[in-house]
Amino acid sequence: MQEKDHEYFMREALKEARKAFEEDEVPIGAVIAYDGRIIARAHNLREGSRDATAHAEVLAIRAACDAMGTWRLTGCSLYVTLEPCPMCAGAIILARLDRVVFGAQDPKAGAAGSVVDLFSVERFNHHPEVVSGVLAEECGILLKEFFRQKRS
Amino acid sequence: MQEKDHEYFMREALKEARKAFEEDEVPIGAVIAYDGRIIARAHNLREGSRDATAHAEVLAIRAACDAMGTWRLTGCSLYVTLEPCPMCAGAIILARLDRVVFGAQDPKAGAAGSVVDLFSVERFNHHPEVVSGVLAEECGILLKEFFRQKRS
Repeated sequence: MQEKDHEYFMREALKEARKAFEEDEVPIGAVIAYDGRIIARAHNLREGSRDATAHAEVLAIRAACDAMGTWRLTGCSLYVTLEPCPMCAGAIILARLDRVVFGAQDPKAGAAGSVVDLFSVERFNHHPEVVSGVLAEECGILLKEFFRQKRS
Repeated sequence: MQEKDHEYFMREALKEARKAFEEDEVPIGAVIAYDGRIIARAHNLREGSRDATAHAEVLAIRAACDAMGTWRLTGCSLYVTLEPCPMCAGAIILARLDRVVFGAQDPKAGAAGSVVDLFSVERFNHHPEVVSGVLAEECGILLKEFFRQKRS
């Protein structure tokens, strides 16, 4: 897949992240693509839904499973604006996603190399392709702006 | 907390696991206790719900967040018949559960020491107490019986 395709889908994930920002949620967005089209999109809803598991990736995976009629998301790619946390990385492995593409790194909780690297644990039964740093600056600026406003 | 209290709640988690067995789901069950009473119970529903994230622990955490009206499950303990996978261990950390008590170990995907140990990663911002091996034999036998029937 071309870098410009990754950027196209990441821009769609960024649209989701901006919806989260407008809803006073930490601005993280995700989309899932299959066969060149988006089958699921979601943004972080932890505060509004009062649900610790309502991260963008988990919500997008649940929506994609619903759209595909199966828990196996073989052939699908997940695009997310921030490096997945352990919960979301685990969900990506369980759902057998082919590929995970993320924007900014998460030095506090990233599970794709920043704190732990769950995708490279050999003993797990699935290993998605990982692409990092797509539109990283744009993804990171949105998060920085959110927390700057929160502090002020 | 006394060992007999842990066993009481684990027996309730086992009841949930048996429901999963009857529904032809991998038999894993969970309950969440707060202030000595059960506020959420769930069992694995991956096949029936066609949802890769529908593990007993995630469903119990979502139900407990709903019951408590917040994503923060401070003061709560989660009891689950099998060692949590990375997704579920991550959800436990995110929900700030005080304690996780599990039965059987999972040598294939366990994230509480068997394959990785997410609960002891210092850089994560929450570290629940972990109690392992409660009614482990009973929890494990149910899983073995399920897979024996599947193969026959």
